[in-house]
Amino acid sequence: MSRFWSEGVDALHPYVPGEQSNRDGVLKLNTNESPYPPSPMALQAMKNVSGDQLRRYPDPESNALRQALAAYHGVNRDQVFVGNGSDEVLGFAFKAFFCGRGALCFPDISYSFYPVWAQLFEIETHVLSVDDAYQIPLDALPSGLGGIIFPNPNAPTGIATSLAQIEALLRRFPDSVVVVDEAYVDYGTETAIDLLHAFDNLLIVRTMSKSRGLAGLRVGYALGSAELIEGLVRIKDSFNSYPLDAIAQAGALASVQDDVYFQETVSAVIDARHQLTQGLTDLGFDILPSSANFVFAKNSRKSGQEWQALLREQNILVRHFAKPRLSDWLRITVGTPEEVRKLLQALALL
Amino acid sequence: MSRFWSEGVDALHPYVPGEQSNRDGVLKLNTNESPYPPSPMALQAMKNVSGDQLRRYPDPESNALRQALAAYHGVNRDQVFVGNGSDEVLGFAFKAFFCGRGALCFPDISYSFYPVWAQLFEIETHVLSVDDAYQIPLDALPSGLGGIIFPNPNAPTGIATSLAQIEALLRRFPDSVVVVDEAYVDYGTETAIDLLHAFDNLLIVRTMSKSRGLAGLRVGYALGSAELIEGLVRIKDSFNSYPLDAIAQAGALASVQDDVYFQETVSAVIDARHQLTQGLTDLGFDILPSSANFVFAKNSRKSGQEWQALLREQNILVRHFAKPRLSDWLRITVGTPEEVRKLLQALALL
Repeated sequence: MSRFWSEGVDALHPYVPGEQSNRDGVLKLNTNESPYPPSPMALQAMKNVSGDQLRRYPDPESNALRQALAAYHGVNRDQVFVGNGSDEVLGFAFKAFFCGRGALCFPDISYSFYPVWAQLFEIETHVLSVDDAYQIPLDALPSGLGGIIFPNPNAPTGIATSLAQIEALLRRFPDSVVVVDEAYVDYGTETAIDLLHAFDNLLIVRTMSKSRGLAGLRVGYALGSAELIEGLVRIKDSFNSYPLDAIAQAGALASVQDDVYFQETVSAVIDARHQLTQGLTDLGFDILPSSANFVFAKNSRKSGQEWQALLREQNILVRHFAKPRLSDWLRITVGTPEEVRKLLQALALL
Repeated sequence: MSRFWSEGVDALHPYVPGEQSNRDGVLKLNTNESPYPPSPMALQAMKNVSGDQLRRYPDPESNALRQALAAYHGVNRDQVFVGNGSDEVLGFAFKAFFCGRGALCFPDISYSFYPVWAQLFEIETHVLSVDDAYQIPLDALPSGLGGIIFPNPNAPTGIATSLAQIEALLRRFPDSVVVVDEAYVDYGTETAIDLLHAFDNLLIVRTMSKSRGLAGLRVGYALGSAELIEGLVRIKDSFNSYPLDAIAQAGALASVQDDVYFQETVSAVIDARHQLTQGLTDLGFDILPSSANFVFAKNSRKSGQEWQALLREQNILVRHFAKPRLSDWLRITVGTPEEVRKLLQALALL
């Protein structure tokens, strides 16, 4: 505590990101990064940004990138917002749509940054327990909610919610914003983008950190009705006019334009997920049905924490959450086929 | 207005950045960018960031960059905070130190983002009028302020505040945070860094957008006591864990390490400022004494708006503020000697 801090700063429970390791020889399967680098076109586009471009402020509206995303997803440019990673986009959404509007609902097992933003922006919350199969019971929501947010597929379980359930939710809460956090959608979950044409209360949030192999570049975006996007723009322009630097805009734009590479690398990860799922099953692990680039697995021979510690001794990092209903489990990022083999070999010896 | 927006979003008055122009042949002297590109070492360091680094999350704590800045400025690493441009750093500071603590004081003629952050975070303000010489009368502050922020040198006037005045302020308000926004300090103003050793209520904010020629990269930082930096970290980690991408961290680090290039380019701008000041004076302009990379000038032959419009017809952009006490003036960024000559030639014909 400091006498200089604003009220509430001391009580904040900041988000704790997954461990980053630069040690050689570490197999890093703990933060859901892509095992593949970004598109070569994206790398070249970033190298092409000149010193003369860098001495200038970047386009504060990221118009070229927003135009490319709009074309890619079949929406208008005024339906696209971009930010410094999807975390910034989500943070802006909390401030723009969820303050002073009643309780914001999210699942108890979900992205652990949601309660952090709620606390930062003093937003009342309604925490919804996932059911015994770790599904989000969206039909069990109370009326009068100020907003709803959940990842699809969910993290850290990897379980997808159906479009029919999302559509029913959008119909039931026409005056509240429903945020569908599609960070992992490219790995086999049906996107809600088609629902944008019918529902002005839907905001879809995406990241380039997973399926586009650009976690190091910090680019996320949102798709929604023009009035939702304008709300995000008003917050952004009251906080930081230029959240995306010139290199990030150029790299993200080129990534969107290289769909062949994108499809190839995503397919490879999905194939490796099947390999990982089969291998873990053969080793006696229980696995939730994943539509993401990670699997959520447990094996009652040891606790989640023990499995994590033993793998760490083998220089393999996976994620463990010391929380109720999660502590038995490991979240394991899908790597290359070779990395999957290495993990399975290590587990077979434990 | 949208029925989906949080309370207050409709009433926000977002910041309006200076015009960005990509047209060929435009002489852009309106947003205080450096006329020189970033250090060649910085450009190379950015090109050296690999695809494998980019697929990974960046260091959320930017430790290498913070260590380099600490060494450069003679402070400890835990006295350095880095963010996505100094605007993000300033936004975090408003949230961390100025909420619910009484009125935040800033000058009426100053960086126009200050009132925007105050509105976003619902901070009470006390606006201090600069005197007839456009000096900030820091000795005229009322007691009981919750915080103080001002640029040194001030923008858009370029006028510096003395260290003696700043030290008196820090002594007078020992329980309030004083933010000295040193965006333009490298062009001839005395930095307050030496005061960090004696005052735990001082926060100095810097940007790499001006003197380091990196406006396109979005890197800013703050220097202060460890407890102030911890306050900023708590807000950052409750909003966005990774505001600085891998390329920005690498480029900023290399820029700090290339002090020869930094000193050369800053000196060149200071020399060109003298050339610009002399030339404008010869043309009958009044000029405030500038310690920045811009000059604030007026010439009663025409209004500020008229001068701006006439220069625009010549493809020269300068900044004009349609505000009380500012509307007669132009803020003109210092360019290369050749750009200064071009501007002066154009003005001589108007």
